[in-house]
Amino acid sequence: MVGSVPVGGDAPISVQSMTNTSTADVSKTVSQIKQLESAGCELIRLAVPDMDAAKALREIRESISIPLVGDIHFDWRLAVSAMEHGAQAVRINPGNLGGQKNLSRVVAAAKQHHVPIRVGVNSGSIEKKLLHDYGYPTPENPKALIESALNNVRALEKLGFYELKVSIKSADVLTTINGYRNLSALIDYPLHIGVTEAGGLIAGTVKSSVALGILLHEGIGDTFRISLTRDPVEEIRVGYELLRSLKIRERGPELISCPTCGRTKIDLFSLAEEVERFIQTMDSPLKVAVMGCVVNGPGEAREADIGIAGGHGVGIIFKKGALFKKVAEAELLPVFMEELKKMEAERRQSLDHC
Amino acid sequence: MVGSVPVGGDAPISVQSMTNTSTADVSKTVSQIKQLESAGCELIRLAVPDMDAAKALREIRESISIPLVGDIHFDWRLAVSAMEHGAQAVRINPGNLGGQKNLSRVVAAAKQHHVPIRVGVNSGSIEKKLLHDYGYPTPENPKALIESALNNVRALEKLGFYELKVSIKSADVLTTINGYRNLSALIDYPLHIGVTEAGGLIAGTVKSSVALGILLHEGIGDTFRISLTRDPVEEIRVGYELLRSLKIRERGPELISCPTCGRTKIDLFSLAEEVERFIQTMDSPLKVAVMGCVVNGPGEAREADIGIAGGHGVGIIFKKGALFKKVAEAELLPVFMEELKKMEAERRQSLDHC
Repeated sequence: MVGSVPVGGDAPISVQSMTNTSTADVSKTVSQIKQLESAGCELIRLAVPDMDAAKALREIRESISIPLVGDIHFDWRLAVSAMEHGAQAVRINPGNLGGQKNLSRVVAAAKQHHVPIRVGVNSGSIEKKLLHDYGYPTPENPKALIESALNNVRALEKLGFYELKVSIKSADVLTTINGYRNLSALIDYPLHIGVTEAGGLIAGTVKSSVALGILLHEGIGDTFRISLTRDPVEEIRVGYELLRSLKIRERGPELISCPTCGRTKIDLFSLAEEVERFIQTMDSPLKVAVMGCVVNGPGEAREADIGIAGGHGVGIIFKKGALFKKVAEAELLPVFMEELKKMEAERRQSLDHC
Repeated sequence: MVGSVPVGGDAPISVQSMTNTSTADVSKTVSQIKQLESAGCELIRLAVPDMDAAKALREIRESISIPLVGDIHFDWRLAVSAMEHGAQAVRINPGNLGGQKNLSRVVAAAKQHHVPIRVGVNSGSIEKKLLHDYGYPTPENPKALIESALNNVRALEKLGFYELKVSIKSADVLTTINGYRNLSALIDYPLHIGVTEAGGLIAGTVKSSVALGILLHEGIGDTFRISLTRDPVEEIRVGYELLRSLKIRERGPELISCPTCGRTKIDLFSLAEEVERFIQTMDSPLKVAVMGCVVNGPGEAREADIGIAGGHGVGIIFKKGALFKKVAEAELLPVFMEELKKMEAERRQSLDHC
């Protein structure tokens, strides 16, 4: 459990992110976390680079609804202080805390505050001895990553601490896949999965989707962060698209839209974008289609609960592949949105009756 | 072979796209294809909805460098005309051409013009009888898709035609994965893979990356299109990111950039975007890093050939994890870009000497 969020076993795969505000700036940090919460973020990690940041955690925690994870490097005192100030989990790289004594201080605090620890190993910060023995982690030989994680886990177990989560991150997709496949065969602790320094919106989304898609499809991974050089809200959005694509979890409507072709007679890109923006405000897990072709559209998108297709001045609204309404093209979007609102309201009402 | 591009066997996995201009509008279509060519598109498909489009193919082909595939539905005459006007492949759904006699006319033209055929089956346009027998394709039961493809392949083989490529597209990621896994065990023809109506930039990128990532990682698929409701140039970009993530093919530099955190002291998003824009003009397959943290950055990104990290007014440029140059933060970007240009020029020169 990280606060109220279960991680591992049969618990839902949880979607997390990390703030990029200065943690000591409470109001900015809280405001970013609130945006992340409405996007569906379930665990939030915050960098704790100094004592001001550690102390700010208390006030931040009081203003947010999701559990808060302190991210600490190098200084055991920051980890202890983060827990004293309300961190519901800490992420440490036990190898960089300056030895066994410091680690035992962190563990004592974790026991006292009932706080789990993520052992967070990164390719870029593996102990020199392991790099020397096994070489820098590669897809063919991710051993240094795995041994670093195992050593750290054993060090914590020796201190009688078992409330663990483990990650071994790399910027390389194949190293990530092979590393976690090996690790998951060796330990039973929940795994936090992710590709680190994945890049910008597109490259980062591709790398994370490939690596995490393959792992989650194989049943590996209990919680994850999509790491993007972007507004963290995008990380959450990509995270849910990933879970949805594999039918692991659903959140809100899904947009099915055709890529347009030489047969398309309307400005489908704008239409699809407007619909996409609108459905992001909805909760119902509807399949919504936006198709460029009145003839093929409804058939091609018969999986959709509701959809539109337009062209040659006429627009149609269809439900489950069958014609529902024919409207002038100019009326298409407003009529469609009215219908979506009605479906959302009906769903809410039916939930109210439960 | 599609024109000069080999597909299948040991040939490189080729990246393709589809125009969304009106094919009959030659100048618009050519201009879009030229943009796609510079992005790395290797095969281009064009909708041929009428005779004007079919006839335009000749002039379009003369103005472009990559092979041109005509996409035809319903009307066998359009397929024949497309081939007469230079289409180097045609994509048809043999089941919707109106019977065996029409199919044999298309095959006769394909033989005459030495043009391969893609059997392109979509979930949304499967023959009614197959839907009745097997049900609408689902992840658990993609049989209708597969039987439709097999029937069509057999019909073409019966006509003595074997220059085939096969696709079975669905808007559902798991149906796509399971469908192609089954199909690839049953036939030896090259497979064109893709998720259809995948959605907008983010959802479409996630769905395509997960489905195609899993398939390509298993060695399934010979050519693909990423289908996005967006400028098709983005489809190519996502396609190469996908191939790169699995180390199947490389094109141009790779950006490694950290997601920023509460420790970041510079505007990393803008910096990363400027660097990303710049490296898109480069050919060298360099790993380029943009990191927010002078202390951890170079170590975390030691896989990078060259990188920058900034913060607190000082910027550093590092190569393979080691400090290369320290500069004032304001100078960071121009000095870095100079260095990138130098590396690109050196690479070009070394290629010239070969």
